[in-house]
Amino acid sequence: MTTVVKPSTRERLLEAAATLTYRDGVGIGVEALCKAAGVSKRSLYQLFASKDELLAASLKERASAFVAELLPMTDDDRSPRERILYVFDQLEEQAGASDFQGCRYLAAQIELKDQSHPASQVAHRVKENLTAFFRAEAERGGASHPDLLARQLSLVFDGASARAGIGADKLTGLITPTVTPLLEAARMH
Amino acid sequence: MTTVVKPSTRERLLEAAATLTYRDGVGIGVEALCKAAGVSKRSLYQLFASKDELLAASLKERASAFVAELLPMTDDDRSPRERILYVFDQLEEQAGASDFQGCRYLAAQIELKDQSHPASQVAHRVKENLTAFFRAEAERGGASHPDLLARQLSLVFDGASARAGIGADKLTGLITPTVTPLLEAARMH
Repeated sequence: MTTVVKPSTRERLLEAAATLTYRDGVGIGVEALCKAAGVSKRSLYQLFASKDELLAASLKERASAFVAELLPMTDDDRSPRERILYVFDQLEEQAGASDFQGCRYLAAQIELKDQSHPASQVAHRVKENLTAFFRAEAERGGASHPDLLARQLSLVFDGASARAGIGADKLTGLITPTVTPLLEAARMH
Repeated sequence: MTTVVKPSTRERLLEAAATLTYRDGVGIGVEALCKAAGVSKRSLYQLFASKDELLAASLKERASAFVAELLPMTDDDRSPRERILYVFDQLEEQAGASDFQGCRYLAAQIELKDQSHPASQVAHRVKENLTAFFRAEAERGGASHPDLLARQLSLVFDGASARAGIGADKLTGLITPTVTPLLEAARMH
C-alpha cells in the first residue's frame, strides 16, 4: 500500500520558489510565490524570515537533485576521465529540454548581483562542490595541474549551460571536442 | 576651445539604463531610471514606447563600445591566432575591475529569460557578431573546423566572463591555457 504524503506548506513554498525563479528570475514577487504554493503570506513569513531566505532555502533544497542528475555514482567503474565526460553528457542531455534555462545556480548569482546575498552564497557553494568534483577526478587521473583543469572544466560547464540556456547554442557536437583537448593538455588518463 | 555638449534627454536615459541594469539587473524600475537620468516619466515615454524598448536601445547603443574594447583594430598586423587571444586578454583585463559583473549581453539574456524580448534580441545579435569575428579569424588562420572553433571560443568567452562576474574565478592564468589547446586542436596558425 502506498501512502501519499501531502507536501507541507514549507515544501510547497520551496517548490514554488525553485520553479518560478528558474522560469521567471529571482525578481519574482512574494504574491506570485504564495499564489503558486497555495500559501498565505503570513505562512511564508512564519517559515522564512524573508523572500531572500526562501530563495536561499529553495536553492539549497535543490542541490541534491542537481548533484544526482549530473554526477556519476561514487562507486562506478568509470575512469576519472570518463567520470568528467559523464557530467558534460548529462549537461548536454539536460540542455535539450524545451524548458532548459541554463544552470539555476549560475543564473541566480548573475541575477542577484550580490555575492553576500544568502541565495548567492548557497549557489556559490553548490558550484564550488562541482569544481571540487572535477578537481578530485583530475587528481585521480594524474592531471598535470588539477586546480587549473578543475577551473577550466567549471568554465566550460558554465559557458555551455549559459549559452544553451539563452538559446545561443544547442551544444550538439560542441562539448566533447571542447573538453577533450583540455584533458589531453593536462595529460589526464 | 572645447565645446561641452550637454547630453540630451535620450542620451541620459540610455546611459542610466546601461549603468543601472548592469549594476542592478533588468528588473530596475522606471522610477529609478528616470531619477538617475534626471528625466520625467513623461519624457521617457515620449522617447521610448516602453521600458523594454529603452533597455533594447541602451544595449544597442553600447554595442560599439563593447566591440571597441574587445576586438583588435581591423588593420593591425597580428596573426589570426593573436587576434583571437587579444580578445581574451581584453576580457581578462576588464574582469579585473572591481565593478565587473560579467558580459552585459549575456547577463541581459539570462535575466530576461525571453528570447523574443527586444533587449534579448539586441543582445543575441551583438554576441553573434563576436562569434562571427571568431569564425572569420578561425577561417583566416586555417582552422580545421572554423564553425566549431568559433562556438568553442564563444563558450569560453561567456563562461569566463560569467564566472568572473559572479566572483567564482579571477581568471588569472586561466584563459590562455584554456584557449590555446582549442586553437591547437583546430591546427590554427
